[in-house]
Amino acid sequence: MVESSESVGVIGAGLVGALVALGLAKQGYSVTLYDLRSDPRTAKKTSLRSINLAVSERGIRALRYVDEEMAKRVLDGIIPMYGRMIHDLDGNQESQLYGLFGEAINSIDRKKLNQSLIEEIELFNSSAKSKIELIFEAKVTSVRVNGGVTIDYVRDGEPQRDHKDFVVGADGTYSVVRQSLQKLIRMNYSQEYIDMCYLEMYIPPGPNGSFRIDPNRLHIWPRKTFMLIALANQDGSFTSTFFGPWELVESLQQPKTIEFFFKKNFKDAIPLIGLDKIIECFTTYPRGALMQVNCSRYNFQDKCIIIGDAAHSMVPFYGQGMNCGFEDVRILLELLEKNGRDRQAAFDSYTETRAEDLKAILKLALRNYHEMSSDVTSSLYLFRKKLDGVLGRLMPQHWIPLYTMVSFRSDISYSDAVRFSQKQQRILKWAEWGAVGSILAGGALYLARRSK
Amino acid sequence: MVESSESVGVIGAGLVGALVALGLAKQGYSVTLYDLRSDPRTAKKTSLRSINLAVSERGIRALRYVDEEMAKRVLDGIIPMYGRMIHDLDGNQESQLYGLFGEAINSIDRKKLNQSLIEEIELFNSSAKSKIELIFEAKVTSVRVNGGVTIDYVRDGEPQRDHKDFVVGADGTYSVVRQSLQKLIRMNYSQEYIDMCYLEMYIPPGPNGSFRIDPNRLHIWPRKTFMLIALANQDGSFTSTFFGPWELVESLQQPKTIEFFFKKNFKDAIPLIGLDKIIECFTTYPRGALMQVNCSRYNFQDKCIIIGDAAHSMVPFYGQGMNCGFEDVRILLELLEKNGRDRQAAFDSYTETRAEDLKAILKLALRNYHEMSSDVTSSLYLFRKKLDGVLGRLMPQHWIPLYTMVSFRSDISYSDAVRFSQKQQRILKWAEWGAVGSILAGGALYLARRSK
Repeated sequence: MVESSESVGVIGAGLVGALVALGLAKQGYSVTLYDLRSDPRTAKKTSLRSINLAVSERGIRALRYVDEEMAKRVLDGIIPMYGRMIHDLDGNQESQLYGLFGEAINSIDRKKLNQSLIEEIELFNSSAKSKIELIFEAKVTSVRVNGGVTIDYVRDGEPQRDHKDFVVGADGTYSVVRQSLQKLIRMNYSQEYIDMCYLEMYIPPGPNGSFRIDPNRLHIWPRKTFMLIALANQDGSFTSTFFGPWELVESLQQPKTIEFFFKKNFKDAIPLIGLDKIIECFTTYPRGALMQVNCSRYNFQDKCIIIGDAAHSMVPFYGQGMNCGFEDVRILLELLEKNGRDRQAAFDSYTETRAEDLKAILKLALRNYHEMSSDVTSSLYLFRKKLDGVLGRLMPQHWIPLYTMVSFRSDISYSDAVRFSQKQQRILKWAEWGAVGSILAGGALYLARRSK
Repeated sequence: MVESSESVGVIGAGLVGALVALGLAKQGYSVTLYDLRSDPRTAKKTSLRSINLAVSERGIRALRYVDEEMAKRVLDGIIPMYGRMIHDLDGNQESQLYGLFGEAINSIDRKKLNQSLIEEIELFNSSAKSKIELIFEAKVTSVRVNGGVTIDYVRDGEPQRDHKDFVVGADGTYSVVRQSLQKLIRMNYSQEYIDMCYLEMYIPPGPNGSFRIDPNRLHIWPRKTFMLIALANQDGSFTSTFFGPWELVESLQQPKTIEFFFKKNFKDAIPLIGLDKIIECFTTYPRGALMQVNCSRYNFQDKCIIIGDAAHSMVPFYGQGMNCGFEDVRILLELLEKNGRDRQAAFDSYTETRAEDLKAILKLALRNYHEMSSDVTSSLYLFRKKLDGVLGRLMPQHWIPLYTMVSFRSDISYSDAVRFSQKQQRILKWAEWGAVGSILAGGALYLARRSK
């Protein structure tokens, strides 16, 4: 526990911000949590632009690290997805398991999870001596370091100013804290859009809240340059998302064109979503852009640090955005715990150890689009995956598929996972060449004998 | 000429901003020019953190495009540098020419050039009907598009708001206009620091304003991972800049260490700068960071466009930062001229045609550090350069060294220069292998004959 005099401003009360606020409060810091949005407990239905989330091992471990009981409560009702369900052009479905030993990633509603975490803050406040102060509808405009940290924000049209000992920026892709940080340190930074937009659709529940397709699979309609996916919600519905190049989506404007496109590519999804709804979605719903953000450093001294999307916005194709953000929280809290009062050592060590891992997962997320939308239908991919799985089951200590390391093994860092996987891929390739070589050699021997 | 009703806010009255303001005013736009700094005509001596500039063909062409007479005035007194002067460890000097036919880049004082351009605006105002409005000490905080463009800025502590038809952002590396633009378009963006800092020093004139080293050369003390350079000023002095890794510069803090370092590496520069001044510089002067900024798009509709460092901050090693910024101005003005009233077509075409060239020059600038600090002392480099030069003189229509294309040929775009040069490099390599092959073949033949 730290001295109660140490105050921290957490900017952003999204998933990562709410969790780090709870974790820091439990470590004894005096926490104020700022958010641009209205209080999610009282706000009206928010925008449709959201992707269903898949919480997996790294995220769950971080939640449990902050509070075992809280983790149980906020994860109540998640729906395990044990694999992908591939829908082909004819509507046939084929299951591909994620894990070798029945592991699953879990479908969870982003809005609901966020609300649960805010409720956990309330619960914490009702029992703890020091309370987490919640300030909603606060537009933070800048964070400045001067001895402590000055947070400028606007609320109800009025400029406000708070002073804290330090600040944690969890304010997402367009982070204001990151912008302030860039003025203090030499931070390499990049943001890159991929030429892909997403549109969210909805598959209503069947009779009596039943699921109309298998809820325990992540459904994919992979069509190479575009795809449709669907994740189950607790009430029997599914959230479905279409991903495709901007040009394609912009060309799908006429009801007839949309109908033709869906009938050709997603025949079996039409009765699930409804043709009218599909047309409504393509002609009127907001379209989301997909961007990745990468930074080389995350802190300034012991005064300011950024985590979550503010530090590493990624494309959603590995299902690791939130899990990685939650892992940021666990690692940061562990380093603060370990370094006692020396917050600068904790922050510096965070930057040093985290950069390589974040770079690795950003790259994996980008690459996984091809796996999801295209590779899953290739026989070579399926053969390698099968071989990968056989080896993983035969010698679980020495052979671990990449997906397993990323999604089910929080004890292996992202960068170690990539390194380990590259080694395994090299071995697989040798094995394949070895197999080809043996066949050729056998053939040659056979011919040689025959010709005698 | 456009209708006088069209108003433009140019943000940033640096070199590029002042030039584009003049160019737009001459095209008939009603121009307001905003700058954070004080009026350079009345301001006190500014910070020392500035690198002497080398103006070359692309910059000169742009100045002449805006106004032939103006170009003559602002370029009055520039000092041509026909090549590099390499200083070795013993103080020996060796000249390496830049051009094949006596071409030169030209040393110019950034501050003086900026002041001249502001004076040109005054001169323009005194003769033209429509005046360029100059607003100094205006901190632009945001640019918003709503029909036209709203420019919010703070002046004398008071928030102000102007409305214009469009905005040109020439507000440098940390551009506020770029930040506003990023909220409007999907712009890929990266900023990358190189691990190198710079320190500016001063070589005073000799007796009666004489030059103590050759003014018509860019002096380089290349020492692989670090270097010293010097460019002549009109009054007989030189501006000298040290470039080196941050770690090295931070280790040079004790007067004895600095003296030892300079005596070992830059013996002949000590009497020029003065040991006391060198020590003062390393222990007290501000250190500059070197960053490059790259964007994939530069405009939003016909409302907003960024040029100069705001769009492509580069490291100074090719001497193209300002030249490229001025070229931006020429290309933008030409496109506006060509597209008549259709500003969106002009802006879109600017983004489409300029991105590849800017990417190319950013890469060249980064790479040229190695050429300046290290390659210039390598015999293979010198041999290739000589061969390059011989071919360039033999067939000037068909063989043009890269340096010549970048610095002396504004009719060849940066990206064409790179492509053309790559082709030439391949030919040179074949020629070298051919030569090696001939020698080997000759040797083999000789041995074969001898052994008969």
